Amino acid sequence: MSGARQRLSLNQRTTANWSLREAIDGTLAAGLESIGLWREPVAEVGLATASDWVRESGLRVSSLCRGGFFTTEEPDARRSAHENNLRAIEEAAELGAVTLVLVPGGLPEGSTDLPGARARAAEAIAELAPVAKQHGVVLGIEPMNPIFAADRGVVSTLAQALDIAEAFPADEVGVVVDTFHLWWEPGVEQQIARAAERIVSYQIGDWITPLPADTLLSRGMMGDGHIDFPAFTRAVTAAGYRGDVEVEIFNADVWATPGAEVLATMSDRYRRLVEPWL
Amino acid sequence: MSGARQRLSLNQRTTANWSLREAIDGTLAAGLESIGLWREPVAEVGLATASDWVRESGLRVSSLCRGGFFTTEEPDARRSAHENNLRAIEEAAELGAVTLVLVPGGLPEGSTDLPGARARAAEAIAELAPVAKQHGVVLGIEPMNPIFAADRGVVSTLAQALDIAEAFPADEVGVVVDTFHLWWEPGVEQQIARAAERIVSYQIGDWITPLPADTLLSRGMMGDGHIDFPAFTRAVTAAGYRGDVEVEIFNADVWATPGAEVLATMSDRYRRLVEPWL
Repeated sequence: MSGARQRLSLNQRTTANWSLREAIDGTLAAGLESIGLWREPVAEVGLATASDWVRESGLRVSSLCRGGFFTTEEPDARRSAHENNLRAIEEAAELGAVTLVLVPGGLPEGSTDLPGARARAAEAIAELAPVAKQHGVVLGIEPMNPIFAADRGVVSTLAQALDIAEAFPADEVGVVVDTFHLWWEPGVEQQIARAAERIVSYQIGDWITPLPADTLLSRGMMGDGHIDFPAFTRAVTAAGYRGDVEVEIFNADVWATPGAEVLATMSDRYRRLVEPWL
Repeated sequence: MSGARQRLSLNQRTTANWSLREAIDGTLAAGLESIGLWREPVAEVGLATASDWVRESGLRVSSLCRGGFFTTEEPDARRSAHENNLRAIEEAAELGAVTLVLVPGGLPEGSTDLPGARARAAEAIAELAPVAKQHGVVLGIEPMNPIFAADRGVVSTLAQALDIAEAFPADEVGVVVDTFHLWWEPGVEQQIARAAERIVSYQIGDWITPLPADTLLSRGMMGDGHIDFPAFTRAVTAAGYRGDVEVEIFNADVWATPGAEVLATMSDRYRRLVEPWL
């Protein structure tokens, strides 16, 4: 395998029906060297077991998904979210994850105060940054497609994520560049250049139309939709990113397909649409 | 009725099952003074009849929807789109519309070249602007929610629409500020201030969750979703906008409701969520 080939990583949510054990074994069987983990399947087997398995596998952990959900106003819920994020940092450290992905969260129930929610997300990141640093974990702010602004992620552009991240040293708070979330952003190539060493994760998935009825599951396999993966990848490479490339696809059809087949397809698409530009 | 109350306008697509005649009569019956027209129902009765009806009604025509669909690369299709847009300008002039709304169009079939499509949209607007000026029609570029970037509108932010519009005098090329499309845009209030006299239409509709299965029909009645209408309206007013406020809602449930009931609901929501900030 080429060096670039070795950078392909399976984000666990792409094979959502696999347990952690199955995902590790499937990743190894497909000849990949990296995996993006989710906290829920890790919790199913327990952190100690999970980190043992990951170490034994020799796989890199390209990311841990996810911390965040910062936007509530209610003090008890804020405290509980903060504590949950402290645990997520510890888990990321224990698993040796390159970054802890932070999904900012949407508007609180009944609220229309988007600037307020965005401000609370930035404040919460400021509270977490020193703890993450102590644990040697780099936080990765994930800007999310505006389709999710109300109910999942109030940080909507890479520019906005960088405005938050740049208040911290680059080795403490970075950004996640996900093609599905950012492909439409005017000037995104300049923002990727601006991000430079702050890019802690490059996630790929396509924007397909018609959009599936459940918008949470609306991501497509690279090449099935409208995103220019060569252009995106060239920009990320030009910005200096040398990390793994995670395939993260939430899609009911992909989930209904046997995992090994999904890994074969994503490896093929990666080889054709991404690898040559790394 | 207060002066602000008189600024409420029914965009015809909100009562999509009404013919032009029914929409004019329904608008008058609801005590409104303004209507936003669509070309298709106008064409059904013919331009001459439509403009006679509108003049006799005494209603203002807050906008004509829509020109645009600029993004094809194929020369014949480009020429045909251009000719269609010339007709749209003539229709807007004949109907006395405040603006011709331009929907830029999505990516051409099979293309992933978003910057190319955006450049072609800007070029096409440059070709139309002198013709519109001759006819006394102001073009209104409509930035569209990124949910439509692939298949309907490649201009995704107000900032981007202004970057295009500012190449022309403000009385030739303006922008449409639609809450549904722009509510998530970081810094949108500053962009509204920047737009100032270029705001040629203020359209309102809510962002609702869960998003309906057909995303084209995903707009909600003001107050049913996540948008801060007072804040948006304050910004538009502060920018100097004194035109009509068009309710444009594509939604299967709204379309299944009798038109008079829809107008009663939208008038009520307008009175509570918008009018006090005009």
